[in-house]
Amino acid sequence: MSDIPKKVHIFEEGPREGFQIEKGHIPTERKVELIDALSETGVEHIQIVSFVNPKRVPGMADAEQVVNSIKRKPGVDYEGLWLNEHGLERALAVGWLKYEAKIAMYPSEAFLKLNQGRTVAEHLADTHRIIKTYKRMGVPITYGGISSAFGCNYQGDVSTEKVVELIDQIMDIAAEHELNLEYFCLADTMAWGTPAAIKRTVGAIRDKYPDMGMAIHLHDTRGMGLANAYAALEMGVTMFDSCVAGLGGCPFAGHKGAAGNVCTEDLVFMCHEMGIETGIDLDKMIECARLAEDIVGHPLPGSVKTGGNLAALRAAASGAAAH
Amino acid sequence: MSDIPKKVHIFEEGPREGFQIEKGHIPTERKVELIDALSETGVEHIQIVSFVNPKRVPGMADAEQVVNSIKRKPGVDYEGLWLNEHGLERALAVGWLKYEAKIAMYPSEAFLKLNQGRTVAEHLADTHRIIKTYKRMGVPITYGGISSAFGCNYQGDVSTEKVVELIDQIMDIAAEHELNLEYFCLADTMAWGTPAAIKRTVGAIRDKYPDMGMAIHLHDTRGMGLANAYAALEMGVTMFDSCVAGLGGCPFAGHKGAAGNVCTEDLVFMCHEMGIETGIDLDKMIECARLAEDIVGHPLPGSVKTGGNLAALRAAASGAAAH
Repeated sequence: MSDIPKKVHIFEEGPREGFQIEKGHIPTERKVELIDALSETGVEHIQIVSFVNPKRVPGMADAEQVVNSIKRKPGVDYEGLWLNEHGLERALAVGWLKYEAKIAMYPSEAFLKLNQGRTVAEHLADTHRIIKTYKRMGVPITYGGISSAFGCNYQGDVSTEKVVELIDQIMDIAAEHELNLEYFCLADTMAWGTPAAIKRTVGAIRDKYPDMGMAIHLHDTRGMGLANAYAALEMGVTMFDSCVAGLGGCPFAGHKGAAGNVCTEDLVFMCHEMGIETGIDLDKMIECARLAEDIVGHPLPGSVKTGGNLAALRAAASGAAAH
Repeated sequence: MSDIPKKVHIFEEGPREGFQIEKGHIPTERKVELIDALSETGVEHIQIVSFVNPKRVPGMADAEQVVNSIKRKPGVDYEGLWLNEHGLERALAVGWLKYEAKIAMYPSEAFLKLNQGRTVAEHLADTHRIIKTYKRMGVPITYGGISSAFGCNYQGDVSTEKVVELIDQIMDIAAEHELNLEYFCLADTMAWGTPAAIKRTVGAIRDKYPDMGMAIHLHDTRGMGLANAYAALEMGVTMFDSCVAGLGGCPFAGHKGAAGNVCTEDLVFMCHEMGIETGIDLDKMIECARLAEDIVGHPLPGSVKTGGNLAALRAAASGAAAH
């Protein structure tokens, strides 16, 4: 357990993950309300919108409006997601967002083919082209990302060896383009991960690249989110994507199987109770979770927003003991 | 990770935990329907009712009727809970239930006092008296149980040292009465546990009593259920209480903060995906979870019943790969 970090960094993705999946219309001012509340929790990174085709993702049609309406809090990095050059141009037009790009690899050839219509060779060629675009546009490429790093609905299980092979490939490409990557991010995109798989894969990467940072992006579709996060903590992972209230999908409201990222306030609770700093005020984050639930208008999966923080109980108990 | 067991035993407590907490009336035949379905999953232990005062727990007023109506499956141990001698007499009157008693200890003096109206000394005297009653009635005393082993709403945090002290006390009492206990059960009754605390406490007990079995009873009130179960697995714990669909409380339906035990099918999924046998057919258990939800008439917390098993996806993917 000596690898458990003293401090972790949480990347809040609730506004982007959550609002793009919700079926009902969510007014821009309510999105802004949640982002502004999140900005006051102490979280240092918030992904607030995605710059995607409004015809395909109507819930993100107001991306620029959201960006222009929030109250920017000094010390918070606000990020936007893009999926192509047009989206990147929209993000860059904002000017003050945090811009950070990755070299992306997919262990699943089936997914690449079905979802993106690319062969592995075509994806590699694309990657070299995109890196040049990022360089031209002045967007720093800071990390290597592996999607569906633990399994894929189209391809099945993903072996540790395959992931390490793709990490090697990312490092080769980075060297070729003279990029200094800071970290790797493993995404359990389709929720195939288990704590054992997390440990095996993170361990293999760290053995080979001990100086690289490690981030993890976990989904909670099958309830493994926090167990997987704990396994990642034990392996020294210090960066976690998460969504307030478990936004990004809800197993109780028709988004069948589309549960969101691991829940921010539950993750923060687990970290704090184990003595790991997050820089986040848990009670404020719980308030944000309740606000998120109010905004989407249906129950969201997170537990601590209902079960409650222990701080007040602990204080009352020690107060009682003092008498 | 070498301590992770190859096989675990799951004690299904859904029918008892779930039906005693539900506010609406649940017809006896529907309770029986769930118990009979659970009997077909391969689970070896089911706690089906509690023999408690029907005025205090109206949902269990039909305990005898339930017991007499189920279709007993050979190889399954059916258990009933009792809280006092009268309840025990009712349980014994059934004749064919699995009878197993514990020596119970409470780290929280505040809880003992507030909830049971006893001092520590009175509880100890009670314990000696109850052991004699069990012996007289022919009920085997097989384990030592610690409630609120990781923290208590009334007392606050519980130290590992305190738990080990109580375990020592249990062993002394067992020796005094010439009992051969088989295992200890740590209950996270009020959901204060974290993976780190589970590891610390289980580790300290195993260091001192390496030959004793270890069971754990986890609640999911703050979302830590499966992370705690994983930590317990890593420490070699082989017996888990759990509830199908997370019955026993629901954060979404007015049982504020009263989330049930860790969810059986989610736990089974995690075990199977990590190569740990449970003897349970996951798909049948998922069907039971959906049945439980239908019976109580509101969403229940478990994730895999919505997110789905991976077996079919895996088979389809490997089939596709073969073509």
